[in-house]
Amino acid sequence: MIVGVPKEIKKDEKRVAMTPVGVAAMVAHGHKVLVETSAGAGSQISDADYEEAGATIVGTAKDAWMKADMIVKVKEPLPAEYDWMNDKIIFTYLHLAAAEELTKRMVSSNCIGIAYETIELTDGTLPLLAPMSEVAGKLAPQVGAHSLEASSGGPGILLAGVSGVPPAKVTIIGAGVAGQCACEMAVGLGAQVTVLDVNPARLRYVHDIHRGENRDAREQSRKY
Amino acid sequence: MIVGVPKEIKKDEKRVAMTPVGVAAMVAHGHKVLVETSAGAGSQISDADYEEAGATIVGTAKDAWMKADMIVKVKEPLPAEYDWMNDKIIFTYLHLAAAEELTKRMVSSNCIGIAYETIELTDGTLPLLAPMSEVAGKLAPQVGAHSLEASSGGPGILLAGVSGVPPAKVTIIGAGVAGQCACEMAVGLGAQVTVLDVNPARLRYVHDIHRGENRDAREQSRKY
Amino acid sequence: MIVGVPKEIKKDEKRVAMTPVGVAAMVAHGHKVLVETSAGAGSQISDADYEEAGATIVGTAKDAWMKADMIVKVKEPLPAEYDWMNDKIIFTYLHLAAAEELTKRMVSSNCIGIAYETIELTDGTLPLLAPMSEVAGKLAPQVGAHSLEASSGGPGILLAGVSGVPPAKVTIIGAGVAGQCACEMAVGLGAQVTVLDVNPARLRYVHDIHRGENRDAREQSRKY
Amino acid sequence: MIVGVPKEIKKDEKRVAMTPVGVAAMVAHGHKVLVETSAGAGSQISDADYEEAGATIVGTAKDAWMKADMIVKVKEPLPAEYDWMNDKIIFTYLHLAAAEELTKRMVSSNCIGIAYETIELTDGTLPLLAPMSEVAGKLAPQVGAHSLEASSGGPGILLAGVSGVPPAKVTIIGAGVAGQCACEMAVGLGAQVTVLDVNPARLRYVHDIHRGENRDAREQSRKY
Amino acid sequence: MIVGVPKEIKKDEKRVAMTPVGVAAMVAHGHKVLVETSAGAGSQISDADYEEAGATIVGTAKDAWMKADMIVKVKEPLPAEYDWMNDKIIFTYLHLAAAEELTKRMVSSNCIGIAYETIELTDGTLPLLAPMSEVAGKLAPQVGAHSLEASSGGPGILLAGVSGVPPAKVTIIGAGVAGQCACEMAVGLGAQVTVLDVNPARLRYVHDIHRGENRDAREQSRKY
Amino acid sequence: MIVGVPKEIKKDEKRVAMTPVGVAAMVAHGHKVLVETSAGAGSQISDADYEEAGATIVGTAKDAWMKADMIVKVKEPLPAEYDWMNDKIIFTYLHLAAAEELTKRMVSSNCIGIAYETIELTDGTLPLLAPMSEVAGKLAPQVGAHSLEASSGGPGILLAGVSGVPPAKVTIIGAGVAGQCACEMAVGLGAQVTVLDVNPARLRYVHDIHRGENRDAREQSRKY
Repeated sequence: MIVGVPKEIKKDEKRVAMTPVGVAAMVAHGHKVLVETSAGAGSQISDADYEEAGATIVGTAKDAWMKADMIVKVKEPLPAEYDWMNDKIIFTYLHLAAAEELTKRMVSSNCIGIAYETIELTDGTLPLLAPMSEVAGKLAPQVGAHSLEASSGGPGILLAGVSGVPPAKVTIIGAGVAGQCACEMAVGLGAQVTVLDVNPARLRYVHDIHRGENRDAREQSRKY
Repeated sequence: MIVGVPKEIKKDEKRVAMTPVGVAAMVAHGHKVLVETSAGAGSQISDADYEEAGATIVGTAKDAWMKADMIVKVKEPLPAEYDWMNDKIIFTYLHLAAAEELTKRMVSSNCIGIAYETIELTDGTLPLLAPMSEVAGKLAPQVGAHSLEASSGGPGILLAGVSGVPPAKVTIIGAGVAGQCACEMAVGLGAQVTVLDVNPARLRYVHDIHRGENRDAREQSRKY
Repeated sequence: MIVGVPKEIKKDEKRVAMTPVGVAAMVAHGHKVLVETSAGAGSQISDADYEEAGATIVGTAKDAWMKADMIVKVKEPLPAEYDWMNDKIIFTYLHLAAAEELTKRMVSSNCIGIAYETIELTDGTLPLLAPMSEVAGKLAPQVGAHSLEASSGGPGILLAGVSGVPPAKVTIIGAGVAGQCACEMAVGLGAQVTVLDVNPARLRYVHDIHRGENRDAREQSRKY
Repeated sequence: MIVGVPKEIKKDEKRVAMTPVGVAAMVAHGHKVLVETSAGAGSQISDADYEEAGATIVGTAKDAWMKADMIVKVKEPLPAEYDWMNDKIIFTYLHLAAAEELTKRMVSSNCIGIAYETIELTDGTLPLLAPMSEVAGKLAPQVGAHSLEASSGGPGILLAGVSGVPPAKVTIIGAGVAGQCACEMAVGLGAQVTVLDVNPARLRYVHDIHRGENRDAREQSRKY
Repeated sequence: MIVGVPKEIKKDEKRVAMTPVGVAAMVAHGHKVLVETSAGAGSQISDADYEEAGATIVGTAKDAWMKADMIVKVKEPLPAEYDWMNDKIIFTYLHLAAAEELTKRMVSSNCIGIAYETIELTDGTLPLLAPMSEVAGKLAPQVGAHSLEASSGGPGILLAGVSGVPPAKVTIIGAGVAGQCACEMAVGLGAQVTVLDVNPARLRYVHDIHRGENRDAREQSRKY
Repeated sequence: MIVGVPKEIKKDEKRVAMTPVGVAAMVAHGHKVLVETSAGAGSQISDADYEEAGATIVGTAKDAWMKADMIVKVKEPLPAEYDWMNDKIIFTYLHLAAAEELTKRMVSSNCIGIAYETIELTDGTLPLLAPMSEVAGKLAPQVGAHSLEASSGGPGILLAGVSGVPPAKVTIIGAGVAGQCACEMAVGLGAQVTVLDVNPARLRYVHDIHRGENRDAREQSRKY
């Protein structure tokens, strides 16, 4: 199979869908990999790095798309790419629920879209979503803590509290990968943390590993 | 010096003021120790144990008091003992603030009273009070937890909470030896613990050793 | 389906089988719910609360039983209820192993009994038993600690120990939900804890989350 | 003594030097307290709160200064206040090392300056500086973490790391109150923390309470 | 079935394949157990212990092999035992990958070999290998720490470091049972630990239970 | 003052008494430092390093001793050095209790011996002994664990235990710097640790920082 790796064109997106290690694995399994020139620049990966791993550098995004059977991306296709989708396998984060126009174009293009965020292992876990959830979950309390600072327009609350000032309260909705990571950071910053989830097994696990720290982890009833 | 160890006569008091190890230490330093017969019975120490350590067993409380220079006790002298206090050194827990009659009798008896609870080291710590404070502090949350059970007439609250029920709140007044021990137990039982003290250095220490567990430890202002 | 929620009649049982949130969920799925008047009184839930959630209040236990297809209860049916069981679905804690007479009456009544304590998820866990096991497991060391106090007739042992007195030993049989919760409390109270189980995977998990605390968690051979 | 509490005039300073509890304590000890009107507004304390505690509200900063023997402030005197300092006792954070002009004016004014930050207990600790150090120390890693985010112009580093990305390294200079608090936060955020200090006793304490977390706490040689 | 338990003959092997508890279980299920005399001597188990549990003691290894249907051993058969394998079931650690000659002999002997190390539960875990992995994993950092001592010819590195000397770095390849146990010991000894594995779920679990201790646990890409 | 730094001559001693940083500090305070050539070789410090820091390299041990006012060493003087001690200040680990001959020679030499191990701060701590105690304390459980291995002639005990085998018991005599460090390592290795000391304040501290880990830390009575 010929695999195309175009440069990401969404604003502020600096990632690239495949590293040289991934290219080498693809090539070792008999595939050909086309990488758009400077696709890895935002991630400090040079064209030479890709070539050393066995990739072929192509000069334009159109080449990376049109000469390949499967396109591997980070973000969903943007309008500039819509015309190249016909009959391709497109492997990327799609998040179609928020993208009506893209959904229609994909349907009419006869492409096969495989969304990273929907790939499940047999135990129901989401291996390609989990790393993103880790980043989001660990970043959230940090962003919240910053937003509470007076100097960024917040009410001047320090999550940890100090002598004479009790710690702040943090409520985390969901005890999945993102929620657990957020809990780890919020507890680490000294907040009083409550975790809500409808799955008591996840809450028991979060309680177990934060025992003595996050005593509020508990199930909450759903309102109908 | 001749040291007398009478049997305790206060209700429910099963302790004895000196163990055989203490007798041996006294004798090794050249003193004579008189132990009232069966003084150690409540603590599983026989007359023979004392004799082996070098003590002389005497048959009555009056002997243990009147033939000695210093009396070593656990509890304060009771009325039956008041007439024997003249000119003695009395080394025991006195807690005179709650004992006006005893105080007057001690003054008139010309005795020298040394209260365990007032003995200070040069750093201000109270070495003879601390062990009692440990017991009291560790026992308190256990008594409180029991009192909260519905079967003992309480409101049916479990300190630890369970899934769907948040842990209970415990407030500890004072972060001395008793308060710190109570905090250790309450945290161990899973409660949400707040410790109050006017000494921020003690609160910082309690925070340090329970960090990640007792995030509420904090100074509270005194009201005037 | 018509669901009946009678008031519990077992001595000291103050719970009710369905909360207003449960009623609302049932009604939202198209069922009708009959609640016996004052069924929620012991749990601080009024008839009005149930009516607001969509329930119909009925005046007697017999009404709640006889007009319904399925009876939802907390405790097993008692003799006063035996005659109402014919052809009903009875969803409650049954614990039939200890109730020979009830078992015979259920068989002859042609009812369908579904015992909460036997409902298993596909992974073998018992979702309706687990919350009860949490309560039982967390309460057990507290009851044990109280029973060891001299003032309640025990030998005067403090689980935590104090300076000069080693902590007490606690042995927990079974590392399921109840055993793990008991371990958490016993470790929190400062005891030396040994956990016995025939399932090494559960013991490794208890060891992992109490690592550095409960070093005794270990498998013990079954005696035949 | 007459004590004056003027409103703070330094930019962004919302604190006030004395709370109503402090006023009440001063009054209870026989002093008179003059509070400038709206001095507590930035801290949600009204003139009425101060009056209830026994203070006299005065209409101008000049009144609060000139009619008092001792001025209690938060920040150092600013040029607008220099002419009022003659012969006063000025109790505030002075930080004179950074304020040459103020220093000269204080010397020539014959005032008695008592800097909060220099008040030592007999054990060498700084009770009035410590709360500020707690805030500064706990805030620092939070500010640092924010500065490392790509969205605030940083290199896009997450202190905690995620799967596949190691945690970031944090170095803390000084293991005093501020340094220890910073260490607590940085460790809580999941960073690899190194603490430097010339006092091995402080480093051992930080190691003791973060043992198993901050294994890098260690003494570093001073360079001469 | 007749089960034979011969004495282990591999150098330095002091274990025995079945304890008296195992014998009793076998007998309770209707099997007959033949134990070679003194088979348990290296494990402090006497012939009398086995007889009390229901075993029959036989005088030679050949008897334990030839009169039995299934042989239960600890280590793989050695050349002295090859001639006795015909048509037997042999239940032991085989590790055939390292034993070409044994493999050939087993094939030609028509025996049924069941290797402990390959027995899997339905969830893929290896119950008979896990205990060996625990021992190996916990022992490894101890052996490594010893090897780093100057007195055993190492570079004189202390894993824990001391004031002024940072802790040593330990890298563990694999986060299975052995790797997790090694991680627990290395963290306990105060080293800076990195764990490598291709399974992010295992790494997240090791991170969870060592959170605040082993911040380096992370996935590492495989090189192709 | 002229300070001499001779090369250590005791067997297996590879340390040197002063690093280049120390030399620089001495020189900055107006002293002259003579370092014997290759004195730092065992510690990877070259003569050039010392010279860069301001030291003067001398060719023989005798020079480093005889031309200096104060000798700074690591280990006690050995017989080859006795004749050079006259009237010198000798600053080193002396441990004279084990060195009768050296003691006599020092007395007759009119030297001033200052033993590192006896230098006390005003709070009674021993700043020059503490680092050695850290090394000794952290090394001890590691040596003990190795000695318990069957392969080094021990009884084949693993401190941590494994599933089915309880952890080993470790008793530490003394809760000073060495004892606390040994406790940290033994707890980290998973042993059941008991710490003995006659100072309850030290035991409470060790209990506080190992709370939840080393529940056995406790005072033990001295036998007379």
